[in-house]
Amino acid sequence: MTDPAVALDHAFDRDTEVEAVSEHRSTLTISDRWNALGDRVNGGYLMAVCLAALRREVPLPDPLVVSAFFLRPAAAGPVEIATELVRPGRRIATGEAQLRQGGKEIVRLVASFTDFAATPDGRRLELGAKPELPPPDACVDPIAGRSPLRRPGIANQVEWRAVEPPGWVLKRPGGDPTLTMWMRWRDGRPTDVASLPLFVDALPPPVLDLGETGSSTVELTVHVRGVPAPGWVAGRSTTRHVGGGYHEEDFEIWDETGGLVAQSRQLAILL
Amino acid sequence: MTDPAVALDHAFDRDTEVEAVSEHRSTLTISDRWNALGDRVNGGYLMAVCLAALRREVPLPDPLVVSAFFLRPAAAGPVEIATELVRPGRRIATGEAQLRQGGKEIVRLVASFTDFAATPDGRRLELGAKPELPPPDACVDPIAGRSPLRRPGIANQVEWRAVEPPGWVLKRPGGDPTLTMWMRWRDGRPTDVASLPLFVDALPPPVLDLGETGSSTVELTVHVRGVPAPGWVAGRSTTRHVGGGYHEEDFEIWDETGGLVAQSRQLAILL
Repeated sequence: MTDPAVALDHAFDRDTEVEAVSEHRSTLTISDRWNALGDRVNGGYLMAVCLAALRREVPLPDPLVVSAFFLRPAAAGPVEIATELVRPGRRIATGEAQLRQGGKEIVRLVASFTDFAATPDGRRLELGAKPELPPPDACVDPIAGRSPLRRPGIANQVEWRAVEPPGWVLKRPGGDPTLTMWMRWRDGRPTDVASLPLFVDALPPPVLDLGETGSSTVELTVHVRGVPAPGWVAGRSTTRHVGGGYHEEDFEIWDETGGLVAQSRQLAILL
Repeated sequence: MTDPAVALDHAFDRDTEVEAVSEHRSTLTISDRWNALGDRVNGGYLMAVCLAALRREVPLPDPLVVSAFFLRPAAAGPVEIATELVRPGRRIATGEAQLRQGGKEIVRLVASFTDFAATPDGRRLELGAKPELPPPDACVDPIAGRSPLRRPGIANQVEWRAVEPPGWVLKRPGGDPTLTMWMRWRDGRPTDVASLPLFVDALPPPVLDLGETGSSTVELTVHVRGVPAPGWVAGRSTTRHVGGGYHEEDFEIWDETGGLVAQSRQLAILL
């Protein structure tokens, strides 16, 4: 849930602020500030745009589970998002968004929403392990040496802190496709639930440390598992299975109190 | 891909054989032979029905990545499946299915298909660990002592072999929500690519070993990562994160040669 008082002070809120055209149609101009490596529009940003449009349609505020199929690359410029309320519900409500550009569908996304403020905590069991990272102040900006022009645009929006730069940044791919980094909004925006579907796609793909040059997402599913505590969040991204030209990428986000707040998996094509 | 010669000899093929009503509409009678615990229609069976209807629409044969949102429970009886070709493509083609019963939408599913016979193996890297299981002949049927009436229907279709029965079967939940079992079709049908989206939902939920009485899937995504070799496949299902009334469930399927052939994750509500 975005705090309305701060909403328009931040790039994320400005660049996902859709305009209502009709009950089930919104428009927006895709910004060029959210490019991933290779200057392609970041998939997490496109998901956030779809979710912003869906929030007009769905009677609950917070994304719970989101699945996005990336059908074609997007470019900066105008898009239209058609939305549908698939199933209203008091605890969970589901909708679909179709993001189109130049008449072609770019993303099809289905999402269930809930209200975390009304969710009882219930039984809690954590068998996962939070990322082992020194405090953010004891970490380094892994791309600190790169000029803003040689950084992907998304790195100007999301700040990273790691124990050391990944091997591929130093042109020595380390062979271990796992990245663990602190993350936060560079402009001071709080990391809320709405940030998480973007954050799970806001680190470089760990397959770069296999010497690959990049990958392109076919589908990404994210589960939001809780409301992040104030501060940094720790992202851990890993690939375990490469074959047939595809790889999976698993991403977890843990908050500073050591709670898991999001989990995602994507299937991607090696470039 | 189903071998047409054997197709109608097997329950899976008979019970997913949709009837074409028009170009984008199919019908089928949901069988009561695929019930999960609590006598609810198994979600993997509903996914297989949607995929069978989508294969009429999509020009590629094999599911690659499938995401299904379960909106309402289904019952045995007639359903209608509306299908749409979202994006044709030579390597990947994407479609959507909406399964309705009594005028209400039960499942919304988006799936990308490919042709594994035309997929070059390319670079292969396996950092995961295949399940550690003795050969199937050295394992036991974990529900052998149960009369057919006290088994979930799906266990009459899919055969299980485990080192020992899970604790909950013996009414002593063990506290470790992980299940590892060999699986195959009970009627001798080969385990092909089309079987995998059903198999990832064809073991009891591991949260039963936490003393929970069951869970209900909100969303399930499956990645098909290869064509299974003949024989049994090993399924490993695990839950690591429980909170807010939700849990995730991760499922891997490995074939007898030790290759990962499918990976899924679902978000589910504790009952």
